[in-house]
Formats: sequence, C-alpha cells, structure tokens
Amino acid sequence: MLGSEVWMCFIFYSTLLILKMYILAIITGQVRLRKKAFANPEDAERHGGTQYCRSDPYVERCLRSHRNDMENIFPFLFLGAVYSMTGPLYSVARIHFLVFFLGRVLHSVAYLLALKAPTRSFAYVIAQVPCVSMAIQILMDVASFA
Amino acid sequence: MLGSEVWMCFIFYSTLLILKMYILAIITGQVRLRKKAFANPEDAERHGGTQYCRSDPYVERCLRSHRNDMENIFPFLFLGAVYSMTGPLYSVARIHFLVFFLGRVLHSVAYLLALKAPTRSFAYVIAQVPCVSMAIQILMDVASFA
Amino acid sequence: MLGSEVWMCFIFYSTLLILKMYILAIITGQVRLRKKAFANPEDAERHGGTQYCRSDPYVERCLRSHRNDMENIFPFLFLGAVYSMTGPLYSVARIHFLVFFLGRVLHSVAYLLALKAPTRSFAYVIAQVPCVSMAIQILMDVASFA
Repeated sequence: MLGSEVWMCFIFYSTLLILKMYILAIITGQVRLRKKAFANPEDAERHGGTQYCRSDPYVERCLRSHRNDMENIFPFLFLGAVYSMTGPLYSVARIHFLVFFLGRVLHSVAYLLALKAPTRSFAYVIAQVPCVSMAIQILMDVASFA
Repeated sequence: MLGSEVWMCFIFYSTLLILKMYILAIITGQVRLRKKAFANPEDAERHGGTQYCRSDPYVERCLRSHRNDMENIFPFLFLGAVYSMTGPLYSVARIHFLVFFLGRVLHSVAYLLALKAPTRSFAYVIAQVPCVSMAIQILMDVASFA
Repeated sequence: MLGSEVWMCFIFYSTLLILKMYILAIITGQVRLRKKAFANPEDAERHGGTQYCRSDPYVERCLRSHRNDMENIFPFLFLGAVYSMTGPLYSVARIHFLVFFLGRVLHSVAYLLALKAPTRSFAYVIAQVPCVSMAIQILMDVASFA
C-alpha cells in the first residue's frame, strides 16, 4: 500500500520524471550512434574506428540537459517525499508537483530543441519555485517540533 | 526497525551500491595522484606544481563511470523504495534488486577495465530492465488508486 | 507528521544541504553572466553574441563543486533516512548528521574560494566518515535480520 492521495500524486509525477531521464539517456546514445561521436575508444572501435572517439556539440548538449535533471529532479524526489509527510492539503500539494513536472518537461524540450533564450532558464526557475516552497515548509514543520 | 523482507533486501543492495560509488571516488583520487592529473591548481601545487593541473584520459574514464552511476543508481534508490511499498512478492522483488546490482557492478568493471564493447552497454541495459519494470509496476499501482 | 527526533534532525540538515546546492547553482549562473561564459549558443546570443559561448575556469570550478555535492549529498539523503529508521540514539545520530553537514559546507567554501590544499580534501574525508559509519550500521542491522 502506498498510502495517501498526496503521496500517490507525488509518486506519479516522480516516476514519470525518472522515465523522462531514462529517455534522455537513450536519446544521448542514439545521437552518439548517428553522429559517430563516442566517449570511449572501445565504443568507437566497435562503430567504425577510434577516430570516432570524439566529442560532438549535440552530445554535449544532451549531457548538460541530463546533468541539469540530476541537479534538480533528484532533490525533488527527497523534498517531495518529506513534504508529503508533513500533511499538506491535496490541492496545494498537487500544484507543487504539477508545476515542477511541467517545468522540468519544458526544460528538457527547450534544451534539446535549443529554444530561444530565456525559455530554458524560465522553465528552470518555474520548476524551482515549488522546490523552494517545499523546502521552506519542511523547515517550518521541523522548527515547530524543535 | 526496518520492516519487511523485501525492504531489507532492497536496503542491502542499495547500501552496497552506494559503497561501490564511494570506492569509485577513491579510485579516481588515486589515479589523479598516480598520474599527477589534477582538476584544481591548488591540488596540483600541493603535488609538484601547477603544470599538473591537467586532464588525463583514465581520470576522465573514472569520472564518466561515476556519472553513469549517478544517472542510474540514484533513480534506483527511489524506484526500489517505492516499489518495496507496493507489496511485491519477495522472490520477484529480490530478482529485480539482484539483477540491478549485478548489472551495475559489471558496468563499473567493464568501464574501469575498458572491456571490449558492447560489454558495458550490455550491463547498462541489463540493469535498466528491473528499473523500468519497477517504474511500470509503480505507475500501475498508482493508477489503481486514481 | 514527520515523527521522531532523529528523523527531524536528519530532515533539518538534509533540507539545508539541498538549499546549499540550489545556492551553488545560482552562483554558477551569476558567474556565467558576469564572466560572459555560456555553455549554450542560445544563451550567449541573448547576452552579447555567440562568441560568449565559451568555457571559463571559475565556471568549471563551480560545476566541479556542484558535481561533488551530487556524488556525496545524494547518497547521504538515502543513508541518513535508512539509518534514522534503525533506531539510533539521538545524540549519536545528531553527531553523524552534524559532522556531514559541516564537512560539506566547508567543502563548498574551500572549493569556491580555492583554499589551499588539502582543506577541501580534508572536508571531503570528514564528511565521508559519518556516511561510511551509517552504511556499516545499516548493513549490520540488515544482517541481524537475515
């Protein structure tokens, strides 16, 4: 049993975001194959020769996008779980999770399609708002016990 | 108290994988010292001079291996914990955790020893199977409540 | 409800460390703007031209600091949560969390200010001690059930 409505909502969006990250890893691999740009000599050798052990701007872009996901989605997995335990209203909690989810999906799209600035930065900031909000609510909840 | 058999099994493999990541960090540091290849001028200065602030292919390999661990082991820590709460059969859950664990250990070995492709990619895919399986089961569990 | 004293203490330091990581991301962005060193052509174009799509040593330093946080703070979020469930003494648990917290704050300061080696390495090792201690206690707890 997973428990409350808030928790289920959190788990739903979190799992989707993890799948989104997995898809990004697959895209990176496909770009490496298509552009013949591998990070390791052993991979390059298998796909035509060690001259293909080289960097590529679009592979670098995918890696930056994935790294930004790690920097932001992983903390959300923690903050969202703890926040869910503080007993928030379902409607309020859902907004937090949904805004983060939509912000991070837009961030990935903006990164991969190299959308005009500041689309990506806007998506990043939008997604940070619920995270900082949850962090503050968690700290207030902890403070009320101290 | 940590609770159920499934949970204990998950905690066991997860903790071992975190220790594996810590060992990788130690290896990276040792390679930096042995090859005299430091990322920071202040480190290079302490070990012979700023000319040793330089990159090294094997250090880069260690860093890629560690990064790939972050991309895959951290999501497992989340998915495995939530999956454990959905009440899976112990035998089925154990297979999920064990396959992931073995896949990730093989991935690290293949990376550090630069084993012939596609050994490393094979290990990556093997480890992803239980993760995607858990993600799907979690989403189905959540959907059954919605 | 968040529960026990140990748990509250863990949540408190963990949330502060996540906020510390968010601040590091903001610093990185500010350094990019001030030094005019952007990772993406679309960002550079918005801030003066594509010639500003370039790397910068201090931006690289911020990125290494942030990455090291991911390598160490994310595993702590997992180990600390599980360790809290094993029923440790509050006084002992608090020392674990506090040492990790102080070690990681010092690590960031040492990195960003490029303090003389081995200050940063010292902070890294100090912060790893409670992590390895928690990992061992978790494994012993799991073993006692097996």
